[in-house]
Amino acid sequence: MSQEIMGMLTKDAPIGVFDSGVGGLTVVREIMRQIPNEKIIYFGDTARVPYGSKSKDTVTRFSRQIVRFLQTHNVKTIVIACNTASAYALEDLEKEIDIPVIGVVKPGAKVASEVTRNGKIGVIATEATIGSKIYSKYITEINKDVTIFGKACPLFVPLVEEGLWQDPVTDEIARRYLAELIDIDIDTLILGCTHYPLIRSTVAKIMGEDVTLVNPAYETARELKELLKEKGLLNEKQPALGENQYRFFVSDGAEKFKRFANSIIKYGILSAKTINIEEY
Amino acid sequence: MSQEIMGMLTKDAPIGVFDSGVGGLTVVREIMRQIPNEKIIYFGDTARVPYGSKSKDTVTRFSRQIVRFLQTHNVKTIVIACNTASAYALEDLEKEIDIPVIGVVKPGAKVASEVTRNGKIGVIATEATIGSKIYSKYITEINKDVTIFGKACPLFVPLVEEGLWQDPVTDEIARRYLAELIDIDIDTLILGCTHYPLIRSTVAKIMGEDVTLVNPAYETARELKELLKEKGLLNEKQPALGENQYRFFVSDGAEKFKRFANSIIKYGILSAKTINIEEY
Repeated sequence: MSQEIMGMLTKDAPIGVFDSGVGGLTVVREIMRQIPNEKIIYFGDTARVPYGSKSKDTVTRFSRQIVRFLQTHNVKTIVIACNTASAYALEDLEKEIDIPVIGVVKPGAKVASEVTRNGKIGVIATEATIGSKIYSKYITEINKDVTIFGKACPLFVPLVEEGLWQDPVTDEIARRYLAELIDIDIDTLILGCTHYPLIRSTVAKIMGEDVTLVNPAYETARELKELLKEKGLLNEKQPALGENQYRFFVSDGAEKFKRFANSIIKYGILSAKTINIEEY
Repeated sequence: MSQEIMGMLTKDAPIGVFDSGVGGLTVVREIMRQIPNEKIIYFGDTARVPYGSKSKDTVTRFSRQIVRFLQTHNVKTIVIACNTASAYALEDLEKEIDIPVIGVVKPGAKVASEVTRNGKIGVIATEATIGSKIYSKYITEINKDVTIFGKACPLFVPLVEEGLWQDPVTDEIARRYLAELIDIDIDTLILGCTHYPLIRSTVAKIMGEDVTLVNPAYETARELKELLKEKGLLNEKQPALGENQYRFFVSDGAEKFKRFANSIIKYGILSAKTINIEEY
């Protein structure tokens, strides 16, 4: 990022956050908690959700369109609140845009590599994130003495979206997905998809209390705060009452998004607007 | 359709078939069985799958792009092999294009209205198809003395795509979805999503042998044959050996599509090609 561009960014500009749909709201929730003065422009790509079963080219093309949309709102930084898009598109986007951009993978990888005691880390995520081996890459850059075991869990997203956060069916599917990670005796498990914090208690119950669960949403909000501080971009004043601090955009189904979003974010999402993302 | 356009269509032109992804292959399978001389151009919108949770506007926009793509292959007719797209886009497309276009909903509705004895018909489908009430509309146009009970089954598609065609989890989810239809005592059940024929045996087991299952894929191929006969467009000659009779295109993940497709169509899908559908 050039110094010139940095100088143009203002502290009270919003943070742009995007995801394939609703999962990224678990990241938004953490940002709201940890840096409550920040404004947020959220985009959920509900017309093309999910990303986790799609290819790198497609996810990168979609991510570029979304970044162009977010930049029309003069965001001061962009958070890719989607593991799949972070895995596939972060490195390209970092080169292409002039504002700071962070993903959810690196912060989760960093913490996992710090907390493991036996050097065996599990990652559960979408097919795409697991296939990209991106967590392995980042973790072994920090700590060479660990082994990473990835497991794709394609049914977790639909189960979460169906509302079965605590349900015998989700228990059964989770037991199947997690069995091999238990056999391998991992001591740390990364919830590598932004939907998964919503079934954290199911995963925790099956893995047992000796396994530390890492929630990249939490770590990302922490890293975002550090980044903004370091760049002098942290918003010091609380937005005025009546100012629209949190704005939500989707590519489809704004009403349905609002209903689901309000089950995740207790702050109350007053409105969500549909835009045609293919035009960006 | 104008007489002029009809005159330009040739018997040996291919049939265009499209779906949001792989589900439409259950329709392709029936077309291959019932009219084996026909050539097929299939498009699966795997970059934007699924459609069943998306809005009418979005699904119609996607369908228009796909129709433009299929028309570049000079198809003689178009089959919307997706219940959601048939529910949302068929009526608009019929007005907009100059070749015959048929969906999967009407043929299924017609047969269901004929086979019911007690006048109670169930429909299982995606949220979008159920929300559109399209089966009710078509069925009551034919037979006013029936009652239609719709039930959205959002987990069936991901369960099928995960390969759990016969599995205790699929049984359990199906039991939950179907319980109210059993209580209501329907005697006919429409498999209103092109993925569902793949879990037909699970549904049949739960519904019991007194309930007739209607498979719109089968009925659509039958109606397509009648339509082609009536228009003088049935291909009378078998395509030459070495001619590429069946061609498959997707918007993402051609290799993955091919693997899944070959589990549905035993003919062997030799190749699938990825195109950028947003350019159409």
